[in-house]
Order: sequence, then C-alpha cells, then structure tokens
Amino acid sequence: MTTTISATENYNKIYNELKTEIDGLLARVMQGRQPASLYEPGAYIMESPGKRIRPLLVLFSAKAVGGNYDRVMNAAVAVEMLHNFTLVHDDIMDNSEKRRGRATLHVKYDLSTAILTGDVLLAAAYEHLQKDLNGNARAVEYFTRGLIEVCEGQSLDKDFENREEVTLAEYLVMIGKKTAALLQMCCTVGATLGGGSDREIEALGGYGRLMGLAFQVRDDLLDITADAVQLGKPVGGDILEGKKSFLLLKALQKAGAGASPQAAEDRNMLRRLIANKGADAWEIPAFKAMYQRLGVIADAENEVEKLTLQALEKLNVLKNEEDRELFTSLANALLNRTK
Amino acid sequence: MTTTISATENYNKIYNELKTEIDGLLARVMQGRQPASLYEPGAYIMESPGKRIRPLLVLFSAKAVGGNYDRVMNAAVAVEMLHNFTLVHDDIMDNSEKRRGRATLHVKYDLSTAILTGDVLLAAAYEHLQKDLNGNARAVEYFTRGLIEVCEGQSLDKDFENREEVTLAEYLVMIGKKTAALLQMCCTVGATLGGGSDREIEALGGYGRLMGLAFQVRDDLLDITADAVQLGKPVGGDILEGKKSFLLLKALQKAGAGASPQAAEDRNMLRRLIANKGADAWEIPAFKAMYQRLGVIADAENEVEKLTLQALEKLNVLKNEEDRELFTSLANALLNRTK
Repeated sequence: MTTTISATENYNKIYNELKTEIDGLLARVMQGRQPASLYEPGAYIMESPGKRIRPLLVLFSAKAVGGNYDRVMNAAVAVEMLHNFTLVHDDIMDNSEKRRGRATLHVKYDLSTAILTGDVLLAAAYEHLQKDLNGNARAVEYFTRGLIEVCEGQSLDKDFENREEVTLAEYLVMIGKKTAALLQMCCTVGATLGGGSDREIEALGGYGRLMGLAFQVRDDLLDITADAVQLGKPVGGDILEGKKSFLLLKALQKAGAGASPQAAEDRNMLRRLIANKGADAWEIPAFKAMYQRLGVIADAENEVEKLTLQALEKLNVLKNEEDRELFTSLANALLNRTK
Repeated sequence: MTTTISATENYNKIYNELKTEIDGLLARVMQGRQPASLYEPGAYIMESPGKRIRPLLVLFSAKAVGGNYDRVMNAAVAVEMLHNFTLVHDDIMDNSEKRRGRATLHVKYDLSTAILTGDVLLAAAYEHLQKDLNGNARAVEYFTRGLIEVCEGQSLDKDFENREEVTLAEYLVMIGKKTAALLQMCCTVGATLGGGSDREIEALGGYGRLMGLAFQVRDDLLDITADAVQLGKPVGGDILEGKKSFLLLKALQKAGAGASPQAAEDRNMLRRLIANKGADAWEIPAFKAMYQRLGVIADAENEVEKLTLQALEKLNVLKNEEDRELFTSLANALLNRTK
C-alpha cells in the first residue's frame, strides 16, 4: 500500500479543499432554524471539528463512477449529520463527558436536549440527502440500511459489555455494524448518486466496509501501542475499562488453546479483567507484555494489513488511476500511516 | 358534523377490519431481527395497544385519491413506527413511568435501551416507507418534514415548561408541530402514494393538520371536563403539573385584560400556578370554576368545533361521498363523540 509523493500531495490538496467546503456547509447547516433550543445544540455539534472522512467518501465515490462533487454535496453533509446523531446518542449511553475535547451535549445542556438534538440531526440528515436524490430512491435505501446497522451495532456493543463470553467472530460482526456499515453506506450512497453501476456500487461499498473494519482494529491496536501524546489520551484505556477489544478477544482465543502453566496464568488474568470489568493502571504493562508474548499485537497488525489490502483490491473496479490513488491515500490517512 | 347511522356502521366495519390487519402487521414488524437486545424492546412497544388512527389516515388518504389499501400498508406501518419512536423518546424526556397502562421502555429496560430502540424504530419506519414508494420520493420528503416538525414541537413543549410567558398563539404553533404535523403527514404521505393531485394532497394534509389541532385542544379540555373513569386518569392532571394548556393560556389572556378585582385575583391564581409549576389536588375545583367563569371551557369547545369544521371543509376536494363519510366518521371517533 504505497502511493507516490505526487499522489499523496494531490490527495492532500483535494482533501483540504473539500474539507474546507464541507466544514463551511456544516457550520451553516443548523442556522436560520427555529426553535433555538433545538438548533443551537445542533449547531454546537455540527461545528465540532472532525476529519470529515465520511463526507469525503461520498464525494470520492460519486466522482469515481462518473458523477461530480457538486451534485452530492448535500448527501455528503447528510452522512456527517447521521454520524453526529450516533455520536450524540452514544455519548449518552456511554456516560461520556467529553468528545474531541469539548463537553458532550447531555453534559453541556441536558439529557432531553441531547436526545432530541440527536433525533433532529437524523431527521435533517434525511432532509439533506433528499436534496441530492434526483429521483434516485435507492440511495435512501442504502442510507437507511446503514442507519439500521449502526443501531444494531451499538446494541451489540452494549450487550458485549455485560457478557462474559464474546467470540472474535461476534466482535467482528459488531464492529462491522457499528463502525464499518456507516463507511460502507457513504460509498454506496455516493456511488449510487454518482450514477455508478451495480458492480461499482458494490465494490466501493466493500472498500468502505473493509476500511471500517481495518480502522476499528487499528483503533484497538493504537490503544496499547500508541504514544500517549500522539493518542491524545492515556494508553491502555480499553484495559482500564475491560473493553472486549480485538486484542483481548484474540488473546483469550490463543491463551484458551494452550495447556502450559503460562497459558493458564494468561487465561486467569484475562478472565479476571472481564469479570472485574476492567483493571488498574499499574496492570497495563503486564497486559501489554502478555499481548506481545501471545503475538496478538502482531495478529492485529496483520489483520489491519489484510483488511486494507482486501479494501484496496476492490478499487480495481475503478477505471481512472487518479481515483484509485485518492481512495488509497484516504486509506493511508484513515489508518494514520505516514506512507 | 353529523353522519348517518349507516355511514358510522360502514366506518366501524372498515375501521375494525383495517385495525386488525394493521395490528397483525405491527405485531410482526420487529420479529426475526437480531439482536434481541434491540428488537425485543422494539416489539414490546409495537405490540402495545393503540387506536391506529395514523395508519388509518394513510390508508383512507391513499384510497380517497384513487389508490388502494394494499399498496400503502407498509407506509401505514411506517407512520405508526414513527409515532412510537416519538412516544419512547418523549417518555424519557417527560420522566413518564407508564403509558397505556404499561411500563415505559426506559423503566422496563433502561435509558440506553430506550434511546436506541427509539432510534431503530425511526430507522425501520423509513425502511417500511421505502417499500411502498414505487419511485415516489416525494412521500419521503413529506415524511421527513413531519418528523422534523415533531422534533421542533417537542423542543418547544419542553421550552414552554420553563418559560413564564407563553402566548396562546405560540401554544398553537407548538401543538401544530408536536401533534398536528404528524397527522398531516399521514394524509400527505397516503395521498401522495395513492397518486393524488397536488390539490388533493394539500387538502387532505390540511384535514390532518386541523384535526390534529382539534384533537389536542379537545385533549386539554377533557383534562378538566371529563369523567375520571372515562379519562382513565385523575381529572385536572394539567393543573397539578402547571401545564400551559389551551385553557390556562386562554384564561391568562382573558383575566389579563380585565380591570376588576375578580380579574386581578384570577391573574394571581394563574400566575402562581405557573410560578409554582403546578398546584395541589384540592385547588383543582377552584381552577375549574375559574375556567367556567372566564368562559374558557366554552372557548375551547368552540375552538374544537371551529377547527373540526375547517377540517371537514377540506374534504370537499374528494369526489366520492363514501370517502368523505369515512373521514368524517374518523373525525368523530378521534374527538370521541357519540354522534
């Protein structure tokens, strides 16, 4: 997965231009609406900074199949609004007080405001999507399918918090719905509105889904391997919370298969983490050492690599080299790689 | 607003048949879906009994413009799901523990489950609507417009709880959005999918909106005039909560205009009700007496009558006498009249 310097430069230039345009649209999207009690909190959320990867996927997908950016700008705004709807409601469910360094909506305002603002963000997302339909009702179907999967994924994620046993396969289904379905939907909606063929829509949707999976496994990996400063939060947060991440579930799988005293000790430590719904900060290095010994850090890296390669393979459907390069650069950016 | 006995009998027959069919569909709508953590609570809500007025409005509207019931059954299910989405989220915001005699979702399960179930009900509502579109994307626009208004209406309603001053005009805007917009949407969606002309869609939408307003004012009225047994809850609940109902706001308007000592006393009593966000049960008869003295009970009755007549006038757009009779009987049923 390498791109030439000029391809990366080209991507950065296009990314920055489009991001500026999207940010401008998002900043205005809740303006001029009443009542303020509903749309001020909405504006607060839509103005919060973000990488805008999802709108970008809509735009790239539309253009890659022969459409153009201008005709899917509202759809691009729509997916970011849908994304923000999920963040607002998830933050309530997860009792999160901060997001991207800012107070979450239910903390800044109150529970009712947060629920209702989430609801209206979703409604306004549909409103925006409609503006770019041009009679293409199929894009609404993809949009709704993505929304349903996101709800199902969040429900599974909450389930897993209270379950003793979760398999790696179940975990992959969950992140497929909670994280990857939305990226997939961005691509299918963009490709549909751009006038893509079924083959193109499916391939780009596959790219989005696989990249979503890769992104989430990478996220689990960074929790333990990243530098705290780069990560912007303490390392090992998933261990503190006992989160059933790729690493934890893979470690359970591997330690569960071993008959050695070491494997038994590892199993006990992992089981205790789950039973206690978390561990103390001083235990994090021991978990990291175990993950390294069991090879699950390498496994996660390989999984990210495998998923990314599968995603990039989907791009073969695209005729234009520049489009393939844009999606490849976006994959690099998403996975935070320098090359 | 009178209908012949045979027209009422015809309505009752059709109503009962359609309600049975709708109830059957609603009972199945959440089945066969995973995860159970999401769809079991969804089924619990969709199985709760209801008059199914909103689906009926979709069906009647489609048929009245030349469509047929079978082709809008999914849309009928969709509006009931949207309605239930609003109930689930409103019950959280209002801290309601019971609805139609059953535990509300956040009480039976928990807050996260209730938020997420509401979300997926809304998503599944769009999913069902799509099945009946046949390329008619305009129905999705009406659907979304109704949804946005419902959110805005709920936001205004929550606002009003904390405001000292609310005018009757503001109140009518609020119930227009919170209650009437959804009934309007049922009619516009049904008429659109039934192949109605712009004139028919607008007229039936107008009928729905006006009936929604009449229904809400009637609801405010029943709170004080109804028999507790018939109402299924204690009389005067709005006074206990200090709810800024049609009666309270109209009374404020009328007492505010008077220079007499009686008017000053009434103003004080009403102001105290608002400042204290409610009154005690023993004060209810005094409020009722005041409302009668000020004539606001008669005003509310006249308002319901006026709105209903305006609604029925919209039916002139319909060619078929039987359709007009069905909508008239539905209006009677909605306002709980015996003739």
